[in-house]
Amino acid sequence: MPGNSFGKLFKITTFGESHGPAVGVVVDGVPAGLPLDSSDIEYELSFRRPGYRMVSPRMEEDRVEILSGVFNGRTTGMPITIIVRNTDIDSSYYEEIRFSPRPGHADLPYITRYGFANWDYRGGGRASGRETVARVAAGAIAKKLLMALDVWIAGCIVSIGDVEIVDEIVFEEALSSRCSPVKPCLKKYEKIFIDMIENIIKVGDSYGAIVQVFVKNPPAGLGEPVFDKIKADLAKAVMSIPGVVGFEVGLGFKYAKTKGSSVLDEIVVKDSGIGWRYNYSGGILGGITTGEPIVFRCAFKPTSSIRMPQKTIDLRTLEEKTISIRGRHDPCIGIRGVAVVEAMTALVIVDHAMRSGLIPLVKIPDSIADTISNRWKRYRELCMHMGESQ
Amino acid sequence: MPGNSFGKLFKITTFGESHGPAVGVVVDGVPAGLPLDSSDIEYELSFRRPGYRMVSPRMEEDRVEILSGVFNGRTTGMPITIIVRNTDIDSSYYEEIRFSPRPGHADLPYITRYGFANWDYRGGGRASGRETVARVAAGAIAKKLLMALDVWIAGCIVSIGDVEIVDEIVFEEALSSRCSPVKPCLKKYEKIFIDMIENIIKVGDSYGAIVQVFVKNPPAGLGEPVFDKIKADLAKAVMSIPGVVGFEVGLGFKYAKTKGSSVLDEIVVKDSGIGWRYNYSGGILGGITTGEPIVFRCAFKPTSSIRMPQKTIDLRTLEEKTISIRGRHDPCIGIRGVAVVEAMTALVIVDHAMRSGLIPLVKIPDSIADTISNRWKRYRELCMHMGESQ
Amino acid sequence: MPGNSFGKLFKITTFGESHGPAVGVVVDGVPAGLPLDSSDIEYELSFRRPGYRMVSPRMEEDRVEILSGVFNGRTTGMPITIIVRNTDIDSSYYEEIRFSPRPGHADLPYITRYGFANWDYRGGGRASGRETVARVAAGAIAKKLLMALDVWIAGCIVSIGDVEIVDEIVFEEALSSRCSPVKPCLKKYEKIFIDMIENIIKVGDSYGAIVQVFVKNPPAGLGEPVFDKIKADLAKAVMSIPGVVGFEVGLGFKYAKTKGSSVLDEIVVKDSGIGWRYNYSGGILGGITTGEPIVFRCAFKPTSSIRMPQKTIDLRTLEEKTISIRGRHDPCIGIRGVAVVEAMTALVIVDHAMRSGLIPLVKIPDSIADTISNRWKRYRELCMHMGESQ
Amino acid sequence: MPGNSFGKLFKITTFGESHGPAVGVVVDGVPAGLPLDSSDIEYELSFRRPGYRMVSPRMEEDRVEILSGVFNGRTTGMPITIIVRNTDIDSSYYEEIRFSPRPGHADLPYITRYGFANWDYRGGGRASGRETVARVAAGAIAKKLLMALDVWIAGCIVSIGDVEIVDEIVFEEALSSRCSPVKPCLKKYEKIFIDMIENIIKVGDSYGAIVQVFVKNPPAGLGEPVFDKIKADLAKAVMSIPGVVGFEVGLGFKYAKTKGSSVLDEIVVKDSGIGWRYNYSGGILGGITTGEPIVFRCAFKPTSSIRMPQKTIDLRTLEEKTISIRGRHDPCIGIRGVAVVEAMTALVIVDHAMRSGLIPLVKIPDSIADTISNRWKRYRELCMHMGESQ
Repeated sequence: MPGNSFGKLFKITTFGESHGPAVGVVVDGVPAGLPLDSSDIEYELSFRRPGYRMVSPRMEEDRVEILSGVFNGRTTGMPITIIVRNTDIDSSYYEEIRFSPRPGHADLPYITRYGFANWDYRGGGRASGRETVARVAAGAIAKKLLMALDVWIAGCIVSIGDVEIVDEIVFEEALSSRCSPVKPCLKKYEKIFIDMIENIIKVGDSYGAIVQVFVKNPPAGLGEPVFDKIKADLAKAVMSIPGVVGFEVGLGFKYAKTKGSSVLDEIVVKDSGIGWRYNYSGGILGGITTGEPIVFRCAFKPTSSIRMPQKTIDLRTLEEKTISIRGRHDPCIGIRGVAVVEAMTALVIVDHAMRSGLIPLVKIPDSIADTISNRWKRYRELCMHMGESQ
Repeated sequence: MPGNSFGKLFKITTFGESHGPAVGVVVDGVPAGLPLDSSDIEYELSFRRPGYRMVSPRMEEDRVEILSGVFNGRTTGMPITIIVRNTDIDSSYYEEIRFSPRPGHADLPYITRYGFANWDYRGGGRASGRETVARVAAGAIAKKLLMALDVWIAGCIVSIGDVEIVDEIVFEEALSSRCSPVKPCLKKYEKIFIDMIENIIKVGDSYGAIVQVFVKNPPAGLGEPVFDKIKADLAKAVMSIPGVVGFEVGLGFKYAKTKGSSVLDEIVVKDSGIGWRYNYSGGILGGITTGEPIVFRCAFKPTSSIRMPQKTIDLRTLEEKTISIRGRHDPCIGIRGVAVVEAMTALVIVDHAMRSGLIPLVKIPDSIADTISNRWKRYRELCMHMGESQ
Repeated sequence: MPGNSFGKLFKITTFGESHGPAVGVVVDGVPAGLPLDSSDIEYELSFRRPGYRMVSPRMEEDRVEILSGVFNGRTTGMPITIIVRNTDIDSSYYEEIRFSPRPGHADLPYITRYGFANWDYRGGGRASGRETVARVAAGAIAKKLLMALDVWIAGCIVSIGDVEIVDEIVFEEALSSRCSPVKPCLKKYEKIFIDMIENIIKVGDSYGAIVQVFVKNPPAGLGEPVFDKIKADLAKAVMSIPGVVGFEVGLGFKYAKTKGSSVLDEIVVKDSGIGWRYNYSGGILGGITTGEPIVFRCAFKPTSSIRMPQKTIDLRTLEEKTISIRGRHDPCIGIRGVAVVEAMTALVIVDHAMRSGLIPLVKIPDSIADTISNRWKRYRELCMHMGESQ
Repeated sequence: MPGNSFGKLFKITTFGESHGPAVGVVVDGVPAGLPLDSSDIEYELSFRRPGYRMVSPRMEEDRVEILSGVFNGRTTGMPITIIVRNTDIDSSYYEEIRFSPRPGHADLPYITRYGFANWDYRGGGRASGRETVARVAAGAIAKKLLMALDVWIAGCIVSIGDVEIVDEIVFEEALSSRCSPVKPCLKKYEKIFIDMIENIIKVGDSYGAIVQVFVKNPPAGLGEPVFDKIKADLAKAVMSIPGVVGFEVGLGFKYAKTKGSSVLDEIVVKDSGIGWRYNYSGGILGGITTGEPIVFRCAFKPTSSIRMPQKTIDLRTLEEKTISIRGRHDPCIGIRGVAVVEAMTALVIVDHAMRSGLIPLVKIPDSIADTISNRWKRYRELCMHMGESQ
């Protein structure tokens, strides 16, 4: 059954396999009049791109082609189709392990579900992290559209392995983490994280990580009661990312270990209006945004593909077999995951902003388009030369 | 925008407010031929019913009326509508705090979103936990239908406050936890949890809790790649429950703190077929079930409504105000939450089983209907006299 | 698979069987702040109610109970559930013909699809026209909400059997047709139609009919290109009504019989803005409203249930059998169908008005609520004493 | 709001503008294991391709590129993306009439809805018939999958202008109509239709047409009661095609002009099982297929783009203006429309076959794949050399 679409009013459908001709996305529901060109999308893609020092050595240029929905530099209200060709493909290794499903991967579930003969085993096929290019591309449009409401989204790494940042984190520092190859929530952790990654690469192992996301200036009142609560839609969005195994909002699991009296929040009058003193709930109550910053975290498991030997079976003989996974892999997928988590967050927030009528559903007035362009320009000045800095 | 429906092929739409005439649900997509009567639903409702010693003293009989979709004791393939009248209603207290939004509640977000004049403030209105009656009612049908595949679902309390069960948990013990007023994953913790709850009631405080869920015999190959992954749909389902603030599958957040080499799983041949040795991933890889038991946890925050004084403002004057929340509330919503988490789990699993064609979409053959009836009978013999035992 | 919901932003889910406890509807997506009470709905139901001279003699009071979503006379933004109990039930006749499927009815398809044992054969079960009570009830809310845009909908009978009104029809006369038992598009045809109906009743036969619908003041620019064109959504809405077998918009089938040069329309400047001289396209071009009145027609087949003998088979023996259908039936279902077609039209238009952001998705400002109330009052003054007039 | 997707289980999303880089479609929900390559799709596209004698002189090669979802000649269960580049583009004429909206076209509604500045006016943009390439491409997959059930779909022209075929039509002749440039339901009308078209081209006018569709071997029991009736979904599918203004099933509008006694059908025992003697209802009762052939018709209006002068206004001055539409257009869009109507029919039938569990949702067994291949081969032998024959 179809499962490749996400969103109700800002709706994306992604497609493409790791070693097929292209990956891409159709974005349906973008109002007309949004200034957009391929460089907007390539800018965002640059933050999940493999090939840099800290991440997978697969080199993808990720050149974007827009096939529809944009005319004269503005969206037309029609579906926007973006494709990115797969260029740096080497499938030879996968031929070798085709009959030896990797224990921490989707290999065996795909074979069970779709049949061995129909399984595109090359590079993980559809289950590859390559699929997330499409999410980040769509997220770029969502982020740009959210500039209409001055909503900014920043994700960053709050822990790698057992090293966790416990200091308070400021939004601006979280935002500028994208300029770093290890995307730490606090700059002062950059060196520590870089050392950890370089060492783990040497031994052929990998690290898990926790990503924390902040949404600045979320409108109050977003979210549908009952099933389409903001916290529920964020959870689904983020848990749909390959490698994510946990999600928590506000105090999250810490909440569950406390007494009510220890986590009493207070409603207070602030300069900006009525608000909450501590924002323990991460900006969401009853599934609806309070207007306080949205704060959540998600857990990435360690990359399953490591050089160390792993036990599996040979599907032809059902005999035990030990494999060592080669190919090109991230030492810590959480790092590149930051861009993907941000994208999914943007998709949820923009969808709900439209569901609440806060962003025009059909056509953006010129004045708002100008505001968007100005804010977006400022946003893109962050880490313009990111590639070089690494 | 509509947000009161859940599921694609087994689709529920819930309705009703805490102090309105009734709460209820329409279940669309149930195949014809499933044996069903109101006692099946009342049985499940008995596990979330307030009025017992350990939970809220609101007394609801929760008498079920089936308005459509069942004829001669079998489903007809038409939408099944279930309503439960609200009987033990006392709205007087809410009149008193109408202008004093409770800090940990949905009051202020609802007012912001829908307008003060349109807000049904009585008993939390739609944001009340009362809404979950509809989920559990629908979940009863889902659970019964899952008997066709011999799938069993058990939730239980793995921690209350800072007391956590760390021992290994066996499915059968988790399942029989429903017979206990504190639903502990291990019987030997019952006394400890009961003491904690009784003490917290005395001081007018509340506890958070963690619920763990096991799904036994899940078919391998369930789940759609990309967005409708089983882990993503479970996350949404569970995070949509009032009071849930975190979700993790398998090792969850622990995964994120480790190295890949520490959590290597192994594919092995078992009596039952190919499987995984450790099931670290909680029965899900690539978003698809592996056939190993599904295991996940979720975090309930402590009940926000406690007797202890809380600071808020008076909406008319914007002046500070201290309130102490009366009314009838649970000392630990996680306990009644177990039944709701189980129901949401059943809804996700049955939906995906239908999406994979493992349960007939239109009509259940008589032979399968008989199998269902037999297994269900066995299931209902668990804690038949639950009411009395408390 | 679920098929009992309609609409994207104004979404209804209907339920109930002809001889079950109740029929009803959940309306999800209605913004908060719409003044609403049960008399609004009963007013609309009065135009499809059986029991009058020209239609089926089944007597239904159609007392409306609102179970959720309305508080203090206004909608709350929560799902609105409306039920109507079935009171005048006589299932005895259906027992008699249970094994003799009626040739022009859904009996045999239901049996094939859902299984004989699961078929609620009483009064047509879910396939009965009784189901349309739920549509008209939901349509009442849609019509009222459309008053925000001053959109008015009028359906009327343009032909019964081979007698067709060929004169030009004025909106106001179409609207007031509801006060007549035969709902003629022009008052001067009332006597002719009444005579036809009375005669056909005497001989135990039935008539087909064509219903024409006018939408006054539709906003220009409604409709989504490609699949969710207004004409496509109207077609689905109307063709989903029991007994409807054809749909055409504007010149419809006449268009197909012409040359392009004969049906050239002209874009002209009118007092009200840019418009079309002839409106051949019925107010829709490219699937989007032009701002001209929407005009379409639909064909109702003659009631299949007639007293005249019909050939069928006995399902137990597969032998030929002749039945004569008793029970209580309309001599021309198109007449009561008018109210249902209007309701479906209202559902489509309001959904698209919300999809285009022309009606608030979440909350109606007080000033608009007042405008709605005033226009609605005027609307309800049409045929207030309808019951008596017959 | 998104409106570019169609279908529930076999779900397509189309994209692309007439003069943009490409048109295309993502098909989500196709089970794994279906043999498929680009020639299957090009075969179907050949029947709607412009450039032949009887239709628009725009020359499009319609080379298909499959970007995803197919591996080693079989579908993988992943979304299938098909693009067709636009090659023969000449936008110069449209620059000229940009401020002179064409009266029978979507120009003005698009401008109203999306804003003049955001309107892709080149060749009709998204409103162009070019969009239907994507429908036919997706329809090819649907048709091939329907071979699993031996379901065959044939559309043909039953009338052009006021010349209507009244003889009885045989399925095989309807099917082979695709080999003719005018696609007549009966071969003996080919010469008449060709003469009509050649003459109308000379005078620069156009004809309307009626298309009739037959579905052979539809399974009995397809369709969801209430809103997703087969007749309703077909109506939406067909009415969403550019230029279609009417739809009727079975006797259609003729039904409405009759008495019930004149159109009594009879349930009888046939060799193939229980059936209906006359099939007046076109194979659908209660919205569910009866097992008799599905028969419906739809009305295409005459091509609005004709050389004859048409009155419009200049948008800059609001002054009257007379235009004569040049560009490359069909003398009778109904002819190329046949392929599109067939495609939309296939999409509806395959979706409902999956909704009823009659086609595997996830994976096609090899034996069924072989059956499909054999039937499809036979199907493709019809008019293999179609291009040449014209």
